Amino acid sequence: MDNLEQKALKYHEGGKIQTSIKTPMNSYEDLSLAYSPGVAYPCLKIQENSDLAYKYTSKSNLVAVITDGSAVLGLGNIGALAGKPVMEGKCCLFKKFANIDAVDIELNTQDTYEIINTIKNIAQSFGGINLEDIAAPKCFEIEEKLQELSIPVMHDDQHGTAIISAAGLINACKLINKKLEDLKVVICGAGAAGIASAKIYKQIGVKNIFMLDSKGVINHKRKDLNLHKCEFIRECDEDSLEEILVGADVFLGLSKADILSEKMLLSMAKDPIIFALANPNPEVSPEFAKKVRSDVIIATGRSDYDNQINNVLGFPYIFRGALDVRASKITENMKLAAVYALAKLGEEAVDEKTKAIYNKELKFGKDLIIPKPFDTRVKAYVSTAVAKAAIDDKVALISDFDEEKYFKELLNEGN
Amino acid sequence: MDNLEQKALKYHEGGKIQTSIKTPMNSYEDLSLAYSPGVAYPCLKIQENSDLAYKYTSKSNLVAVITDGSAVLGLGNIGALAGKPVMEGKCCLFKKFANIDAVDIELNTQDTYEIINTIKNIAQSFGGINLEDIAAPKCFEIEEKLQELSIPVMHDDQHGTAIISAAGLINACKLINKKLEDLKVVICGAGAAGIASAKIYKQIGVKNIFMLDSKGVINHKRKDLNLHKCEFIRECDEDSLEEILVGADVFLGLSKADILSEKMLLSMAKDPIIFALANPNPEVSPEFAKKVRSDVIIATGRSDYDNQINNVLGFPYIFRGALDVRASKITENMKLAAVYALAKLGEEAVDEKTKAIYNKELKFGKDLIIPKPFDTRVKAYVSTAVAKAAIDDKVALISDFDEEKYFKELLNEGN
Repeated sequence: MDNLEQKALKYHEGGKIQTSIKTPMNSYEDLSLAYSPGVAYPCLKIQENSDLAYKYTSKSNLVAVITDGSAVLGLGNIGALAGKPVMEGKCCLFKKFANIDAVDIELNTQDTYEIINTIKNIAQSFGGINLEDIAAPKCFEIEEKLQELSIPVMHDDQHGTAIISAAGLINACKLINKKLEDLKVVICGAGAAGIASAKIYKQIGVKNIFMLDSKGVINHKRKDLNLHKCEFIRECDEDSLEEILVGADVFLGLSKADILSEKMLLSMAKDPIIFALANPNPEVSPEFAKKVRSDVIIATGRSDYDNQINNVLGFPYIFRGALDVRASKITENMKLAAVYALAKLGEEAVDEKTKAIYNKELKFGKDLIIPKPFDTRVKAYVSTAVAKAAIDDKVALISDFDEEKYFKELLNEGN
Repeated sequence: MDNLEQKALKYHEGGKIQTSIKTPMNSYEDLSLAYSPGVAYPCLKIQENSDLAYKYTSKSNLVAVITDGSAVLGLGNIGALAGKPVMEGKCCLFKKFANIDAVDIELNTQDTYEIINTIKNIAQSFGGINLEDIAAPKCFEIEEKLQELSIPVMHDDQHGTAIISAAGLINACKLINKKLEDLKVVICGAGAAGIASAKIYKQIGVKNIFMLDSKGVINHKRKDLNLHKCEFIRECDEDSLEEILVGADVFLGLSKADILSEKMLLSMAKDPIIFALANPNPEVSPEFAKKVRSDVIIATGRSDYDNQINNVLGFPYIFRGALDVRASKITENMKLAAVYALAKLGEEAVDEKTKAIYNKELKFGKDLIIPKPFDTRVKAYVSTAVAKAAIDDKVALISDFDEEKYFKELLNEGN
């Protein structure tokens, strides 16, 4: 048993999350308010107007993290219960970074219809739903069908990676003076995150995207593609990663460890951008990539390298912004707002707290294209942008939103 | 708006319950344990052996409070979302009195099959399930079908009232020297609590029970009875409450306010026992009952009178005992163990803390037949008895249970 395994198992004993009581509960009078007879009054108010559940219960700040366990981390289909430590971890991140209460639900079914039906049956308990670690392609249908609920529902495996990496891509391009519309982008991995990333890259202006799944480049010669992959069919002769990578400006890896060879790295365009996000071991190690290509900008999913593409930069704040203005859903504009807010903050120097953690000055550059997770300003930047976009998209139920005031409040909260 | 309503609404603003993080989460190293890559290790352990979810997640101390909102408090079918304040209140009581983490789920269906199916689909997330405020008769089928889950599932509206009132009945009989088998018991209300109470009264030795529903006495003349009521059909000519109450030793009211008249009270046997549990206004007020019958023992559901039949004396500790020995279900013997433990503790003088709250000496007697909710010893008494019964019934997965040590630990915990 290696050191990390021992530490991690010890750390998890007894679980990572619990409940706590927000109101006083120390006397018979307290009990008579919290429970019978006093509790009848908020019940009757909500019966009259269901909207008041947001006022008189914890719903307004409560997100369910729901999985069927079909695609947990890089571990695959290990089942929902085995994924519970990940779901509890996600709940902790919601609390730590956005002060959102989150509870995890591990479904005992992997059937698309059953998943949708079960979530519909429990959804009103929550202010929002974070779908987690559900395999493609069913994740697309599940997320889409659940948009009819009147609360925000987002599958983080799709949009989290897409949003954070899009912000990184925008900033990387600023550093090397390339235009998004001129990029040749190769996305290796056509699962939940790959497809969502391709979609959001198009929305920020990328025009030339090639996708690969486990069988190679998604091109006109393929006969085995599902509906979601068909959107990305290209007319091209290249079939392999090695072939398609020639002259590419960007490689987004959502596949497996160590698939980028020296030859492949050398075949890429000048100033290549490599997002090697396979976990725990990336498609190419930053050390090796930098040795072969001194002009590279590389990011990974790991906290022990620079440029971590970490979903925690997104989901806590996207939900926080959405919940705070009572958004009925998370629209494309809200996701894009998160992208641009992260990119904007990424250009600024890190805050004092982050400086202290790293014990060094950190400035926007090839080794710092996106904010660090503990940067206390991320919450204010992203949540405000998302909330504002919800207002603009007319999906927010709160109408008296004061952008500046909200931003300042979040900035003062820290994390 | 009266004072209680104002206070209660104010008290509920923002909800009563939240989540909190149990483990350190202040550095990148913490994050690497709580989430990727460290979190993969407990996931893999649980994948190998699902039982380890009890070790490496919060499941072992986690109960879901689930309702369809079909019979909330005395408010009726107000819908699950309107019942959320009650469910959150229940979660608070679980935490306050037994240090159990509880989350509330409000179902968006009142269909028996859908309820069962939905709960089965989410059940593995939790260590136990407290069904709440589900109407009779469907509550019986739902609870029964869910017994096949390998975690404790209990519908508190049935068994809570049954267990606490049975303990009160045992102690009341001690005070007036009546034997349980000699009692004539009239139960007014044949819903979830009425039927469960009748069943447990039989198990503690009561032989002569008459039940009434809204149409009168459940006797051989009735043609409109569901399966659950049929169990209590009696061959008798009396049809009304007034008729059947003549000579009765016990009246258990689970019906509505102010239905016991002076004449009816006077028609009961010597030393009548009256449990008037309609909420918020009992079937007869203690003042009135005592004025008419100086020999009465009366209990209500209210905290502002003596002898409160309060479910909080049961469910937190029943689940605590069951969870602590990993019981796969809550058996009849476990419920009976709770009854006798409560009755036993009821015979003892109150503890120092309770004395301080009431600012007076309180002794076992007609005005104190069951323990007070804040009595710090209830947890130790009831949880230990329930855990022991689970061991005896061979439904516990923990085998090295040290009854004495466990009792002392809980006694020291307080509440």
